[in-house]
Amino acid sequence: MHACRSLHGAASTFPRTPIKDLMTVPRVDVATPDTTTTATVYGWVKTIRRQKNLSFITINDGSAFKSLQVVCDASSIPAASLADVSVGSSVTVTGAVTHAPKSGQVEVHAQSVTVLGTSDPAVYPLSKKFHGLEFVREHLHLRPRTNTFGALTRVRNALSTHRFTLGTTPSFFGRPAYLTVSGQLHAEMYASALSKVYTFGPTFRAENSNTSRHLSEFWMVEPEMAFAGLSECMASAQGAVQHSIQHALATCPDDLAFFQEQQQAKESTPKKSAQSTNLLSQLTAVATHDIPHMTYTEAIAVLTQASVKFELKPEWGIDLKTEHERYLAETYVGGPVFVTDYPAALKAFYMRQNDVADPDRATVAGMDLLVPAVGELVGGSVREERLEVLEAKMRASGVDPNGLQWYLDLRRFGTVPHAGWGLGFERLVLFVTGMENIRDAIAVPRYPGACRH
Amino acid sequence: MHACRSLHGAASTFPRTPIKDLMTVPRVDVATPDTTTTATVYGWVKTIRRQKNLSFITINDGSAFKSLQVVCDASSIPAASLADVSVGSSVTVTGAVTHAPKSGQVEVHAQSVTVLGTSDPAVYPLSKKFHGLEFVREHLHLRPRTNTFGALTRVRNALSTHRFTLGTTPSFFGRPAYLTVSGQLHAEMYASALSKVYTFGPTFRAENSNTSRHLSEFWMVEPEMAFAGLSECMASAQGAVQHSIQHALATCPDDLAFFQEQQQAKESTPKKSAQSTNLLSQLTAVATHDIPHMTYTEAIAVLTQASVKFELKPEWGIDLKTEHERYLAETYVGGPVFVTDYPAALKAFYMRQNDVADPDRATVAGMDLLVPAVGELVGGSVREERLEVLEAKMRASGVDPNGLQWYLDLRRFGTVPHAGWGLGFERLVLFVTGMENIRDAIAVPRYPGACRH
Repeated sequence: MHACRSLHGAASTFPRTPIKDLMTVPRVDVATPDTTTTATVYGWVKTIRRQKNLSFITINDGSAFKSLQVVCDASSIPAASLADVSVGSSVTVTGAVTHAPKSGQVEVHAQSVTVLGTSDPAVYPLSKKFHGLEFVREHLHLRPRTNTFGALTRVRNALSTHRFTLGTTPSFFGRPAYLTVSGQLHAEMYASALSKVYTFGPTFRAENSNTSRHLSEFWMVEPEMAFAGLSECMASAQGAVQHSIQHALATCPDDLAFFQEQQQAKESTPKKSAQSTNLLSQLTAVATHDIPHMTYTEAIAVLTQASVKFELKPEWGIDLKTEHERYLAETYVGGPVFVTDYPAALKAFYMRQNDVADPDRATVAGMDLLVPAVGELVGGSVREERLEVLEAKMRASGVDPNGLQWYLDLRRFGTVPHAGWGLGFERLVLFVTGMENIRDAIAVPRYPGACRH
Repeated sequence: MHACRSLHGAASTFPRTPIKDLMTVPRVDVATPDTTTTATVYGWVKTIRRQKNLSFITINDGSAFKSLQVVCDASSIPAASLADVSVGSSVTVTGAVTHAPKSGQVEVHAQSVTVLGTSDPAVYPLSKKFHGLEFVREHLHLRPRTNTFGALTRVRNALSTHRFTLGTTPSFFGRPAYLTVSGQLHAEMYASALSKVYTFGPTFRAENSNTSRHLSEFWMVEPEMAFAGLSECMASAQGAVQHSIQHALATCPDDLAFFQEQQQAKESTPKKSAQSTNLLSQLTAVATHDIPHMTYTEAIAVLTQASVKFELKPEWGIDLKTEHERYLAETYVGGPVFVTDYPAALKAFYMRQNDVADPDRATVAGMDLLVPAVGELVGGSVREERLEVLEAKMRASGVDPNGLQWYLDLRRFGTVPHAGWGLGFERLVLFVTGMENIRDAIAVPRYPGACRH
């Protein structure tokens, strides 16, 4: 093998310390600053302030919310060598790791500053000042560099821990994504053999829903469990949401503190409701408390008695609108709530028919998880496992059983009680970050009219 | 909140023990069988053997490769009550957990057997006998119940541990999947702010590639790293592949032992090459050894000197075909190998141009990871970060720079050296399981002509 070489022991071309790791260098006594540790960082310039003898550069590399301050003494870093350092330029800095005497913040005293890529201040669209989200959405490819989208992306990443939360042997498979609006029917196929499975992938909706809560492409987590009824279905959804939020709280404290500040700034205008004033304590409460549940029939009773004028009058049989969902979550419960057992006429054919005395009030064993600000976060149900009932429901819904014989086969051969749910991942991101427009919760939002990147 | 109830302490309707958990009940002294533990299992019947006084049912619930043997004594379980128990039916069994006196295997002595769903033996398409993969592919919705597809799905799940392997702060985002064949350009967008990101999602190729290695829809892991060159790119791909395989070896020993047996059975026909005779030791070697690398130019020299007649004669400039890739991996190296620095003319415009003396031998800093049996598993490169070079390469490739101004902006404003790679997830599944047709490595395969489920 004369022509082969090994990677073993190859020195990295980029001996890089992520800024996040540098932030945790222990603070030494401020009277005896530690100037013995050297580090090399890489990142993009957030700010630069030039003075006669000292210049200050703040650098962010996306590994942490905080940027690193670099101090350049003109005696070792001539001002001319910093000519190309501007907001948005990329640099690598090697220097002594110290702690600022007053703040104790980690900073680097530069021994060398190298510009990797310039950024012409005359045309770079992002400046130090605050940019509105609409403006930033026009510059999708640069918005990850903003505080907001850096933080949002780290939180989004932390939330995708669904893999651990679904029991002992979740069996992940790739969602068959094209020409489908859900992987559920295929997930039932696998749950009918492996007991517990989930899919996670993009989901497409072609309807022209130009709202702050809808996307043409969104990501959905869809677990499906054999040997499960409605209480297992709710317990599993609660567990997944709680685990994801706990993971985000544990791994993204700075990012979430930023979103809390953002929310408090918005709420200096008094129109917001009271329970969302502290994002972190709201999230902690959701992550640690059982989520209550009520039936649709009970929910209608609550809405009927509410001292609120709804646009759509609440009465048994209506499809709950955002106004009703938010009233239940925000005002009545003051947090997330499951609503169960919806009228059969409102729900898909595959949801399991309940036994009810009054045929005019036929319901199905479905549940929606409603959360403040967002509304529906999770929708799930027990699946109709009785062949004859399922066939009858298909026909009543105008679904041709002949096109879904494979789905009926799952009921012909060893049918089992089973249930599952779907969580709109971008809605979870909205709920956890307090952001308001779902287009800001995904890397490249697809919605009617938007297809430039 | 009179209308709300809590999930807290709600008893499960399905007090189920996964069969996998039951398998690890400690073996007691065979002389004093432990009949004090009772358990309830749910699953599908694999086999049933009826005798006068005893009946034996094996049950699988997908949590483990092994099925559980249930012993039914006619004195407590009348034979008539087992009339509906057939292959494919779903049952729940409660009974005493014991260990078979001779084998020591865990088994359950039934106190009750309840059929949840029948399965008419006259029409159920899967029987105890071995089914060819083509036959099983005709019954996609039932194939998860076969040994092969149960095992494959558990291994597939274990392999999707890419999330932990990509460094300290991989920032996951949803792949913008529709109308795209790769998320790479969008991943560069996020790497140019967050340093390390990855996407994982379905990828679509419309070409009519009707081969055992191509799908119209496949899943791809695509990490993208700022501040990285070719050696970082290779080290990261090696790390991800090794970590995934280690995780599968650790968590799916029974499933992988099954695939090893399958492979050995196939290899009793002598046409197969020698190095794949032991799947487990091959995987262990890949998981623990550095992967060698060679340049394309070196690879061509090796192929030219090979005592093998290739259909396409190896000479500098040709696109390596599967016959060449497999020779390099299987015969020359005897395992995975990186081939680097391909002719620029063969590769996409975004790969970084190398400095070479001879302009007729222009190369790019790209790499492919070739593995036995499968061929190309990973493809990656350093990305061209120099604005002028990138624009020139776009024009030379017929790509209009005006349509990708946002991509060029990443080079205009703080460009950085960066690199990334893509791993075809179903090819990793093939490599690890020894399966041969990629249509068997995904839940619902999409390929030209197939769209029934």
